[in-house]
Amino acid sequence: MEEKNIRILLQYDGTRYDGWQKQGNTQQTVQGKLEAVLSRLAGGPVEVHGSGRTDAGVHALGQVANFHLPLSAFCGSQTEAADMIRIKNYLNEYLPEDIRVLAAEEARPRFHSRLNALSKTYIYRIETADKNDVFERKYRYGLGKEPDLEIMKRAASILVGTHDFRAFSSLKISRIDIRRDGTQLEILLEGNGFLYNMVRIIVGTLVEAGLLERSVQSVKEALESLDRSLAGKTAPAKGLFLSAVAYEEK
Amino acid sequence: MEEKNIRILLQYDGTRYDGWQKQGNTQQTVQGKLEAVLSRLAGGPVEVHGSGRTDAGVHALGQVANFHLPLSAFCGSQTEAADMIRIKNYLNEYLPEDIRVLAAEEARPRFHSRLNALSKTYIYRIETADKNDVFERKYRYGLGKEPDLEIMKRAASILVGTHDFRAFSSLKISRIDIRRDGTQLEILLEGNGFLYNMVRIIVGTLVEAGLLERSVQSVKEALESLDRSLAGKTAPAKGLFLSAVAYEEK
Repeated sequence: MEEKNIRILLQYDGTRYDGWQKQGNTQQTVQGKLEAVLSRLAGGPVEVHGSGRTDAGVHALGQVANFHLPLSAFCGSQTEAADMIRIKNYLNEYLPEDIRVLAAEEARPRFHSRLNALSKTYIYRIETADKNDVFERKYRYGLGKEPDLEIMKRAASILVGTHDFRAFSSLKISRIDIRRDGTQLEILLEGNGFLYNMVRIIVGTLVEAGLLERSVQSVKEALESLDRSLAGKTAPAKGLFLSAVAYEEK
Repeated sequence: MEEKNIRILLQYDGTRYDGWQKQGNTQQTVQGKLEAVLSRLAGGPVEVHGSGRTDAGVHALGQVANFHLPLSAFCGSQTEAADMIRIKNYLNEYLPEDIRVLAAEEARPRFHSRLNALSKTYIYRIETADKNDVFERKYRYGLGKEPDLEIMKRAASILVGTHDFRAFSSLKISRIDIRRDGTQLEILLEGNGFLYNMVRIIVGTLVEAGLLERSVQSVKEALESLDRSLAGKTAPAKGLFLSAVAYEEK
């Protein structure tokens, strides 16, 4: 049966989800919610590939996913643009209000959201004031202390570059920007091949350096050792946003 | 027993509250939460006066309230500033995370948040895109349509001024500003003596004018008649924020 490969850009509030990836029979995952709605549209099972998993409680501003839909799902539409708008609207109508599809487009047949991803950008938000803003409490880590920004930046600069994780994998961190806006800190991290929980561990370790609880020198060692006991605490999920996924331009 | 009159500025996410005002035995009100924590601090009942009620689901960026605390609650503190910081911290520690005290200060003995309020400013947020941003879904009315801003502004300008509600009361609306930011509309309303639900009815009526569902001329008539059937639909609570309360400077 002929089918189209559809690529979508989506946003979600991860607060009430067990992360992106479908697990067993539970549907409290973003992937599970998408597949349930798409299977209804297609009249049969549809598998959705994300650019990568996000953990429980992690949010997305620009997650990318793709899936194949049989042409029969497009009965009636006359142009590709109309088909894509129809799919986007269908998803937004039936998805819960904490998941939103921002765009849908037809991708080349072999495009794969995860395999073709070149890099990912994450944003991590920290509140340094004594109590989190009530409207942002689910979207910022309430640190309640003021870390030294210059020290965090020095520690971050040590992490930028390529890291060899023994036999495991290789990670290139291309950018870490840390900026302050009043009582908020925002840490932007760009890289490829972040391992499970790694962004949150990096943030937790940078924060410890900024609070003078560890030396700047220990940061890189802790990261590369993959010895969890050397690194800092894992920063809470709620401050983390998958901001964007980069692909090679067609 | 000697006591101090304390004035606080606070923020709350109204989503899970039955509004500001205490009702019967339920504590799912903002006033109820505050009184519960303060009574514990004071070792006896404390009554909290707000500048006015906010309805169920309505938020506050700058609500003002006051209450009297016996001097015995201040044991140990040496300066007024230290007392106020202690009260603020105590409240923020024991209040739920969707209520936050921004400031506490000693007020003159006869200061009363409601009776001395000169005017209030509300902000109402509307999303005109087809689906609400997931992170703002509890804080914006998802209209999903694009009203005509110029018509809304014309209708709003008719409402600015003093209105006589028969025998009921008098309302002076000193300002209505409507601005667009991308797909968001923000309506700022300032006035004294808004009656129950009135801000949301005004917003609902302005939106109907902007969608050409009613004439500009009918807007003022609907407001002043107090005939609910003539006015527009009540806009949802979740888009409404009590932004600020003005008092005469000391």
